[in-house]
Amino acid sequence: MKVYFDAVSTTAVNPEVLETYKKLLDEYYCNSDALYDDGVAIYDMQEKSRNLIAKMLGVRKDEIIFTSGASEANSLAIKGLCFAHPERKHLITSIYEHSSVHNSFRQLEEDFGYKVTYLMPDEDGHITADMVAKALRSDTLLVSIMQVNNEIGAINDVEGIARIVKKHPGTYFHTDITQGLGKVDIDLKDVDMASFSAHKIHGLKGSGALVKKQFVELLPLISGGQQEFSLRGGTSNALANTVLAKTMRIAMENKEKYHDQLKALHDHLYEGLSRIATVNYAKGLDTLMNISTPIPSEVLLNALNDKGIMVSSKSTCGSKKNEENRTLKALGLDEDHAIRISFDYTNTMEEADYFLTQLKEILDKYA
Amino acid sequence: MKVYFDAVSTTAVNPEVLETYKKLLDEYYCNSDALYDDGVAIYDMQEKSRNLIAKMLGVRKDEIIFTSGASEANSLAIKGLCFAHPERKHLITSIYEHSSVHNSFRQLEEDFGYKVTYLMPDEDGHITADMVAKALRSDTLLVSIMQVNNEIGAINDVEGIARIVKKHPGTYFHTDITQGLGKVDIDLKDVDMASFSAHKIHGLKGSGALVKKQFVELLPLISGGQQEFSLRGGTSNALANTVLAKTMRIAMENKEKYHDQLKALHDHLYEGLSRIATVNYAKGLDTLMNISTPIPSEVLLNALNDKGIMVSSKSTCGSKKNEENRTLKALGLDEDHAIRISFDYTNTMEEADYFLTQLKEILDKYA
Repeated sequence: MKVYFDAVSTTAVNPEVLETYKKLLDEYYCNSDALYDDGVAIYDMQEKSRNLIAKMLGVRKDEIIFTSGASEANSLAIKGLCFAHPERKHLITSIYEHSSVHNSFRQLEEDFGYKVTYLMPDEDGHITADMVAKALRSDTLLVSIMQVNNEIGAINDVEGIARIVKKHPGTYFHTDITQGLGKVDIDLKDVDMASFSAHKIHGLKGSGALVKKQFVELLPLISGGQQEFSLRGGTSNALANTVLAKTMRIAMENKEKYHDQLKALHDHLYEGLSRIATVNYAKGLDTLMNISTPIPSEVLLNALNDKGIMVSSKSTCGSKKNEENRTLKALGLDEDHAIRISFDYTNTMEEADYFLTQLKEILDKYA
Repeated sequence: MKVYFDAVSTTAVNPEVLETYKKLLDEYYCNSDALYDDGVAIYDMQEKSRNLIAKMLGVRKDEIIFTSGASEANSLAIKGLCFAHPERKHLITSIYEHSSVHNSFRQLEEDFGYKVTYLMPDEDGHITADMVAKALRSDTLLVSIMQVNNEIGAINDVEGIARIVKKHPGTYFHTDITQGLGKVDIDLKDVDMASFSAHKIHGLKGSGALVKKQFVELLPLISGGQQEFSLRGGTSNALANTVLAKTMRIAMENKEKYHDQLKALHDHLYEGLSRIATVNYAKGLDTLMNISTPIPSEVLLNALNDKGIMVSSKSTCGSKKNEENRTLKALGLDEDHAIRISFDYTNTMEEADYFLTQLKEILDKYA
């Protein structure tokens, strides 16, 4: 039996999305910016997708910038804003952001003379509007706080944070909604920028978008032509952009459709895991659990891998680096004995049972 | 009849590459940085591709950085180098680079305090090593000159330019080989960085790479985790990266295989076009021709489009902008009456004949 419990890392492409994408690949190849009919046809499909995505997110069509993924969108939002507004040099973020956000801030700090305030989560794992309010300065250009943390699943009140930032002249609010999209609703009314990728919601790798409100000025990181309102150059990956709308629509439909199934799966896993390990955090996303066991994570991951079970110990983007896990450290958790279990509607009760049985056997064997 | 004579803008995915890609999409979805077997399997495929690409280009495996395309690779090479070496503020490029290169330099000039020398091509359309030698200053950080121009097909002696730059301490040489790859051989020995995309050689859109020699230090534009030697964050588009090696191998094989066919096609088109229009430039790439007619380009493009013939008047990245055509202007050509015809081994003599017949009819009608 194979069990994929690493949905936070990536997901398989939805069969319907994949079928559409493959058909498009067979039929269309022209440059979406070409002026002849076959180019215009592809452009129109892409723009229809942009329009649908904008509607789903409650923003304008020209506020959706297609990117190669969330890491690009995060980098563009953060550095693009800073480069366009060099007069303000203070930035606020949290200590537990995704590496694309964290390392954008580190770069601005180390190489471009910015001051960055890194907020620590409270004991519940949250970054609060109050923390942000206290950290704001007269020269704060940007606040970037993720909606859902990718290690422990903590859900932040980013709408509340956005409201606070909105009142502060000259300060913008960006949020990485990659882990929240299709799982936790969000009102982007007061949010200036939001980033996400397709591959976390059963879409294609190499696909994502930045939501950027009209009034926000950025410098492009990837320079080029007229594509994406001159904010992101390069021949459009138009077919990938075209299926992003469908990817999002299906994710949002499935959120409702599988709500009860996911809750049942969560409760079953929670109950089972509580009996054999320490559940580190149970206040966030229903589909993400962080547990600790007496066995070193690396050993446990290998033992589970031998049984066909795929879980991870930390963000996959840092899986091979000896970097500390910023999230677990901030919460005082021992990262060397923690593993992350994440799932979604493609997982079953049988998989949960198999996982619990195998985990127990491994723990008993190593005990 | 449909005739696609815009190969310089983009190309259809090679059927063999497409089939492989679709099969991979069906079978693999894990994150290539995941530590379990299914993740490692994908990583291994991607790294095998990286290795093959490196061998084809005569560089080291760790000198290939996968990107979302050439515009990203160009932006990363140029801005990434500047941001990592803020002590040198002079840059050299040509006036007729692709917009991703040109606008990277414009941004560095306008927003980051750099001085940029824009070299003008000689009457043969070339940027020469001698021009570069004369423009070099003690504080020149970077020289970026394209291998093959995308508007007129001029082929530059970038190896000669690279040798000149190599002798100049502290100055790096980058070349955009997007239009030359699979068409014009290049020895990258003295080249410090080179960019290219997959979709110009019958590969996938959203795929490309930067060749960056080991000793060249860059700051990442897209921040993130350990991917691409920490120079390009984001979950790898591993399946696209995997088929890039095959895309390149086929392109290089076809270069030899179709050499005579392409020469015959070129000669036939050249002869036919010379009789009914002005061929603006015939000293470069055999597969690209720029011609002038008495009819405004826009009108001619539309008339050809009505006959199923796809050509363009300028770089597709600027197709909808009212920007001047920097290449044609530099060569003293009238861009409002010029069109670009580009083809490759997928085109036939019958298509060329159909094109010539239709073009003649349109010209006669509008005369």
